[in-house]
Amino acid sequence: MTLTTDFGTGDGYVGAMKGVILQRAPDARVVDIAHDIEPHNVAAGAYCLCQAAPYFPDGTIHVAVIDPGVGTALRKPVIIDNGGQWYIGPDNGLFSLVAPSPRAVYAIEDAAFMRPQVSSTFHGRDIFAAAAAALAAGVPAHQAGAAVSLRGRLTLGTPRNQDAMPAGTSVATVVYIDHFGNLITDLSRSDLPPSAKFRVGEYVIEKLSATYGDVAAGELVAYIGSADTLEIGVREDHAARTLGLSRGAHIEILAS
Amino acid sequence: MTLTTDFGTGDGYVGAMKGVILQRAPDARVVDIAHDIEPHNVAAGAYCLCQAAPYFPDGTIHVAVIDPGVGTALRKPVIIDNGGQWYIGPDNGLFSLVAPSPRAVYAIEDAAFMRPQVSSTFHGRDIFAAAAAALAAGVPAHQAGAAVSLRGRLTLGTPRNQDAMPAGTSVATVVYIDHFGNLITDLSRSDLPPSAKFRVGEYVIEKLSATYGDVAAGELVAYIGSADTLEIGVREDHAARTLGLSRGAHIEILAS
Amino acid sequence: MTLTTDFGTGDGYVGAMKGVILQRAPDARVVDIAHDIEPHNVAAGAYCLCQAAPYFPDGTIHVAVIDPGVGTALRKPVIIDNGGQWYIGPDNGLFSLVAPSPRAVYAIEDAAFMRPQVSSTFHGRDIFAAAAAALAAGVPAHQAGAAVSLRGRLTLGTPRNQDAMPAGTSVATVVYIDHFGNLITDLSRSDLPPSAKFRVGEYVIEKLSATYGDVAAGELVAYIGSADTLEIGVREDHAARTLGLSRGAHIEILAS
Repeated sequence: MTLTTDFGTGDGYVGAMKGVILQRAPDARVVDIAHDIEPHNVAAGAYCLCQAAPYFPDGTIHVAVIDPGVGTALRKPVIIDNGGQWYIGPDNGLFSLVAPSPRAVYAIEDAAFMRPQVSSTFHGRDIFAAAAAALAAGVPAHQAGAAVSLRGRLTLGTPRNQDAMPAGTSVATVVYIDHFGNLITDLSRSDLPPSAKFRVGEYVIEKLSATYGDVAAGELVAYIGSADTLEIGVREDHAARTLGLSRGAHIEILAS
Repeated sequence: MTLTTDFGTGDGYVGAMKGVILQRAPDARVVDIAHDIEPHNVAAGAYCLCQAAPYFPDGTIHVAVIDPGVGTALRKPVIIDNGGQWYIGPDNGLFSLVAPSPRAVYAIEDAAFMRPQVSSTFHGRDIFAAAAAALAAGVPAHQAGAAVSLRGRLTLGTPRNQDAMPAGTSVATVVYIDHFGNLITDLSRSDLPPSAKFRVGEYVIEKLSATYGDVAAGELVAYIGSADTLEIGVREDHAARTLGLSRGAHIEILAS
Repeated sequence: MTLTTDFGTGDGYVGAMKGVILQRAPDARVVDIAHDIEPHNVAAGAYCLCQAAPYFPDGTIHVAVIDPGVGTALRKPVIIDNGGQWYIGPDNGLFSLVAPSPRAVYAIEDAAFMRPQVSSTFHGRDIFAAAAAALAAGVPAHQAGAAVSLRGRLTLGTPRNQDAMPAGTSVATVVYIDHFGNLITDLSRSDLPPSAKFRVGEYVIEKLSATYGDVAAGELVAYIGSADTLEIGVREDHAARTLGLSRGAHIEILAS
């Protein structure tokens, strides 16, 4: 079982979830994915899950809680059967990247999948941890509640208005900025023209490199990252801060 | 077994504790509660333990180290039998919220409950981790040392000088500010008058809501939080920073 | 098995490594040492490993990834047999403090020790996690690849130019600053003259104390830390920020 939250590592919230899980499923092995997702940033959580969850073995239960709508009718608590992996959390788009076409989705409605008292502000403890423990302890997912469809959707990137671009250029959108400050885009390796150049703000990067070490320290580098998409970095520095760019920024691809 | 410290997640201190535990109790399962408690803030650690530790199964050993008096006679290393859960750490008030009336408390004095060499500045590694491992490995707690009483005490909040308040008002004290910036107070749900209003700095919140999503983004919200006490937040923002308030601040409760 | 990285706790990178490990070695127990090593700071990672890894039981596999040269010929991926503990990561000096004279070192070259597709920028996932899982699953280390020598070397501290010092003085170098702001030096307890004084910037500390609590809050304190070397702190405050000192700073030892 894994946990991914925006709860940070300084409060008792993550611990409360772990306690509820181990209380109800003593043999569960709980593994932290990340707890410093930017608060309330569902898109960042969705991206994080994408980069980590698929590597876990079949049958893993992933609990994820980035939940600004907690306690409202805006989103339902759900269990997602993704055909091999399970996802548990709020239906607010958090799982729409990692499980775009799930095998089944169940609303969490049954008392066996929650604590006896459910607060309005901490469903991580009172619903999601308890539901994960129930599933881990062998209660069938379909007993949680009605089969539903995911309503939360989010897309990374923004449309690429390529019509507005000069001939011969296309654009990649920054969808995520990681801990190192690397700008991760939505442009797949396979969509990249051969021998492209890259315009990033006022700079032009002359070619695609294999890795950071192919340029000098402090220099801009374009490369295919570990998600198999175009990334822009600064060797041994924080590209987003250096360039003053953030999520949603555009990188122009210039055919050479 | 759980760990709660102010050691952060960038040094080797937490790892050293885990190593000592696993060296001496190879079957222990070590679960992180939180390591980013504000440095030296015993009250914050005490609050964190309260919010997390009670959810764990009976028999859990909780090791907690926020220990500004390490190595001095100011506080004793102790093992606390709370009748179901065990707490190990410095007797400096850290356990006075989560275990206000323990079944038994033992000073850690016996060599079997510490490493052969005990430093003056890292009892987390040299005493508390070793003591937790001894307990986990089956050594009876009473062999640790003399039965003692807890001397460390702390209380959350400050007295409520209600005499000085205008008639019809009472006050809640901010006892903790969480990762999201929510102001958590000491006022229980049951002590809240019906249909109260809340004065927070220069603002008045007109009514109690169930959760963040009941107000618009960026607006102040008063609600009963997951600790069953009054909290003040700003939807999808950091209330403490927005309001310029910190621990100890007062929220006036206005009967309507 | 332990993990030590500079990946932070907000991205999916640490989770991806854990997934790969558990996918390939389902019984492995993965323990976090630290993930907030300063980005790209190999020396800080090396120091952290030193302070934590040796406390783990024999046979522990330690995976560490602070890897600014990832994907280049600058450094080889290696498995280090340290005679009791195993270390896996880049040969860039990260292991030169904790394993200065290893029993054997193997380059990671064999396909059984990596994922089928190896990216240029995330060897933590594609090589080091997979290699650790192979080792944990019982594949002999020597099957990983050629026996090699470690090439990465780093030394803590700087030469002590004692010739340039006034008679009767020597100097300690700050090799690490921890989460609390304590200045950790390279000067061993045994190299400290009896009844020394310490010049730190413009201040003089009149004597060695046993621990923080021996001075008043906010005061400078010199003591032998948990690594058995001289440290300088400020009680209940952050010495490095208070003094404006960083790694590499010198502390003068004045014979009294």
